[in-house]
Amino acid sequence: MSRTAVVVGAGLSGSLMSVYLARRGFAVRVLERRGDPRTPGVREEGRSINLGLSQRGIVALREVGLLDRLKPATVPMRGRVVHAPDGTLRFQPYGTEEDQVLHSVLRHDLNVALIDEAERLGVDFRWGHRVTAVDRTVPSVIAGEEHAADLVVGADGAFSAVRAQLARGLRMDLHQEYLEWGYRELLIPLDDGGKPRTDPYALHVWPGDDGLIVAHPNADGTLTATIFLPFEGPAGFAGLDTPERVRAFFADRFPDVPALIPDVVEQFLDHPPASLVTIRASPWHTATDDGRGTVLLGDAAHAVYPFYGQGMNAAFEDCSVLDRCLAAHPDDLPAALAAFERFRRPHTDVLAELSKRNFVELRDRVRSPLFLARRKADLLLHRWFPRAWVPLYTLVSHTTTPYGEALARVRRQDRLLGGVTAALTGAVLAGLAHRSRAGRKVS
Amino acid sequence: MSRTAVVVGAGLSGSLMSVYLARRGFAVRVLERRGDPRTPGVREEGRSINLGLSQRGIVALREVGLLDRLKPATVPMRGRVVHAPDGTLRFQPYGTEEDQVLHSVLRHDLNVALIDEAERLGVDFRWGHRVTAVDRTVPSVIAGEEHAADLVVGADGAFSAVRAQLARGLRMDLHQEYLEWGYRELLIPLDDGGKPRTDPYALHVWPGDDGLIVAHPNADGTLTATIFLPFEGPAGFAGLDTPERVRAFFADRFPDVPALIPDVVEQFLDHPPASLVTIRASPWHTATDDGRGTVLLGDAAHAVYPFYGQGMNAAFEDCSVLDRCLAAHPDDLPAALAAFERFRRPHTDVLAELSKRNFVELRDRVRSPLFLARRKADLLLHRWFPRAWVPLYTLVSHTTTPYGEALARVRRQDRLLGGVTAALTGAVLAGLAHRSRAGRKVS
Ligand SMILES: Cc1cc2nc3c(=O)[nH]c(=O)nc-3n(C[C@H](O)[C@H](O)[C@H](O)COP(=O)(O)OP(=O)(O)OC[C@H]3O[C@@H](n4cnc5c(N)ncnc54)[C@H](O)[C@@H]3O)c2cc1C
Ligand SMILES: Cc1cc2nc3c(=O)[nH]c(=O)nc-3n(C[C@H](O)[C@H](O)[C@H](O)COP(=O)(O)OP(=O)(O)OC[C@H]3O[C@@H](n4cnc5c(N)ncnc54)[C@H](O)[C@@H]3O)c2cc1C
Repeated sequence: MSRTAVVVGAGLSGSLMSVYLARRGFAVRVLERRGDPRTPGVREEGRSINLGLSQRGIVALREVGLLDRLKPATVPMRGRVVHAPDGTLRFQPYGTEEDQVLHSVLRHDLNVALIDEAERLGVDFRWGHRVTAVDRTVPSVIAGEEHAADLVVGADGAFSAVRAQLARGLRMDLHQEYLEWGYRELLIPLDDGGKPRTDPYALHVWPGDDGLIVAHPNADGTLTATIFLPFEGPAGFAGLDTPERVRAFFADRFPDVPALIPDVVEQFLDHPPASLVTIRASPWHTATDDGRGTVLLGDAAHAVYPFYGQGMNAAFEDCSVLDRCLAAHPDDLPAALAAFERFRRPHTDVLAELSKRNFVELRDRVRSPLFLARRKADLLLHRWFPRAWVPLYTLVSHTTTPYGEALARVRRQDRLLGGVTAALTGAVLAGLAHRSRAGRKVS
Repeated sequence: MSRTAVVVGAGLSGSLMSVYLARRGFAVRVLERRGDPRTPGVREEGRSINLGLSQRGIVALREVGLLDRLKPATVPMRGRVVHAPDGTLRFQPYGTEEDQVLHSVLRHDLNVALIDEAERLGVDFRWGHRVTAVDRTVPSVIAGEEHAADLVVGADGAFSAVRAQLARGLRMDLHQEYLEWGYRELLIPLDDGGKPRTDPYALHVWPGDDGLIVAHPNADGTLTATIFLPFEGPAGFAGLDTPERVRAFFADRFPDVPALIPDVVEQFLDHPPASLVTIRASPWHTATDDGRGTVLLGDAAHAVYPFYGQGMNAAFEDCSVLDRCLAAHPDDLPAALAAFERFRRPHTDVLAELSKRNFVELRDRVRSPLFLARRKADLLLHRWFPRAWVPLYTLVSHTTTPYGEALARVRRQDRLLGGVTAALTGAVLAGLAHRSRAGRKVS
């Protein structure tokens, strides 16, 4: 008799996990509070329109055989174009290797491809089903009626109802932290000749300590820009509340943007800003004595700020890791869930920290000379010693080295660099001392 | 026209705050989910039976004129009696001054005294009213029907419904962390002659890195002990599940306890352990444009581990600080609430950290020679320089120095002590060097 699974949420991680589970022989039902995204007119709200897919996400999609089918809908991004306030552009390649590119993909296309594949494998999607309660002792979830299963997966995003329900009566540690900055999305349309208005094979960044913009290309040549600003203050979302103020703000801070987005003022004022949250929780799973269990994954388990472009990639990697744990413990679901949490949580905790740090980096440092010099040194060392020296960004975005190991490795590299610098400084000083002694001799 | 307030929770902070508000001219209604504690048979559950009242709580009770009325029901504790595993006892006085004592008081007596006083001042208590929703834009709360007011106070404890409701749509940072240890309460009865079984004018501690007990005296000569143990493991609550195991555990780890609590095995197995949580939240308050507002205080705003005995004392101090902010902004409620949060939150954040550290101290260090030496040095320095040198414990428990300032001050003292130690060490080394040079001369 095949095991049963109920997945809560048909977002990116829920739909991919349903594919993995169906492939592993589970009878899977997915409960999603929204309508079927394939129905015309159903549109997800308040989330980014497109996403940067990098190595971890790619590996997972390849595992379930979906990568090739998705490729045509994605746009490769070979590096960053940094827009300075004076309008000058600088290109920073992502890496030295051919495969060190990111892929921009529409959330909607990706989600639909995953749902289609899941349905092909027999997954039963129930749209308009909002889960309101979870009984971890069965386990089962209530969405109108009760749905019981051997495995309940909470893939219902940062404000997970499954997580909130598990927290009742469990000693769940929870850390929830909002950024003082929010975001709004703006579309960079094609120009009047139907051509892209800026390089469509790169990620674009307008850094700044009081506001920043990131833009990803879409397959049709448009780009979707996301502007991040403080919520409060005269130059924050609160203060930018009239067309005059918004116009003056862009002219002053992002002078090349109005040429890329002619109706930037209207778009900016069109909808309220969304917020950004970091969430860490522990535990992620529970089990019953008779071998059933409940587990969280994706944003429900660990929401991170989007500044490393890793939220979805980490969520996809979760699915792949959980699938491997299920394979390693084919007859012991509680052991599989425990292994998943034990192996995975330390790494997503590190990702949360890295994503916070990258906010500071994008904000302050992408245009600082020190940062650029450091970045150049990193890339040079990587070119000279491609295996021994790998920059953190490369490890995070272009490999599947677990996040925690990536950080540990870069710390070792940094110590080495510190050591080398110290040795070089020592040599230089020794040289100076020699010259000075030599100098004294002749004086 | 007098302003109105709705207070959620008639626990320690809710009932004290209702007294302050009534004295300041508010028309106050208190909504409490439990029944009236003055009704025979109504008994609060899952919380400590008695509490250590220290300076901050004393000052607040004196402010509202309740201290003298409560005095007869409290028991002074002049220091700690430390019980070693071999049965030996050591007394550590709390301080050098006459007023450096703690007072043990029954939660029930204290709560009833506060409620009686509030009713005398016209506060309207509604028992059996559980608040399920808050609308911060009015503000109002739903407990069956809707109760609107100029000021809504969430004093509904660590798992505050008001806090959870405010978090919806507010960017509320939240940190919730459980200790891996839980607790159970045990009564130390009078002996057969009707006498206390151990010193009734002290707090008793059985330290240990695998379990600890703290006991406070009651006015009738009994003491209430609280045993803290890990939840998991063979020597944790999970493993101590049969009379034999419990008996063997006490005989081994706390050999003098069975003489104090003849039915310790039955009491221990009688009810499940309770858990301990640290909660930090931000913001604590919201305001409307027309000058109304909502605020959290007490455990709803900041639950701490009980190892500094400060939870209630901090909650009482909250009430006193909020009252002063209301006095400073008599016509501007939002300004008063903002001032309260701005002034108060940094200090309760420090208290949360101190309470965590004191767990480690109680567990590991109360019996360590280094700790005892340090403590002795602290008390000696305090005796010699009573104003300039005050130990942290004294500042926290026996003064109203804000927690953050107490910590900063002790850090300065520690640096000074470090400096003095370094200077002394320097002098000693200089002396040694002199002797050694002197020695060389004669050799
Ligand atoms: C501005 C921004 C930019 C981003 N850019 C990137 C990027 O470039 N690269 C990247 O890797 N990541 C990026 N991310 C992160 C990425 O969006 C998330 O990590 C990803 O969406 C997480 O997927 P999920 O399936 O776990 O959660 P979600 O995508 O939030 O899906 C959760 C699903 O559960 C459903 N649901 C919720 N509650 C219930 C309920 N009670 N009952 C039933 N269903 C429910 C929801 O309707 C939704 O469909 C970005 C995020 C933001 C905010
Ligand atoms: C083991 C232990 C020992 C302790 N020892 C000490 C000590 O020695 N000294 C010290 O200072 N502190 C001590 N504390 C801390 C102290 O108990 C708390 O800080 C204090 O009780 C907080 O008071 P409060 O009024 O904020 O919350 P609570 O005392 O928890 O009161 C909250 C009230 O709100 C009510 N309520 C909850 N939800 C709702 C709702 N939805 N609607 C209506 N009403 C609601 C509850 O029924 C309750 O009456 C100890 C705590 C523990 C656990």
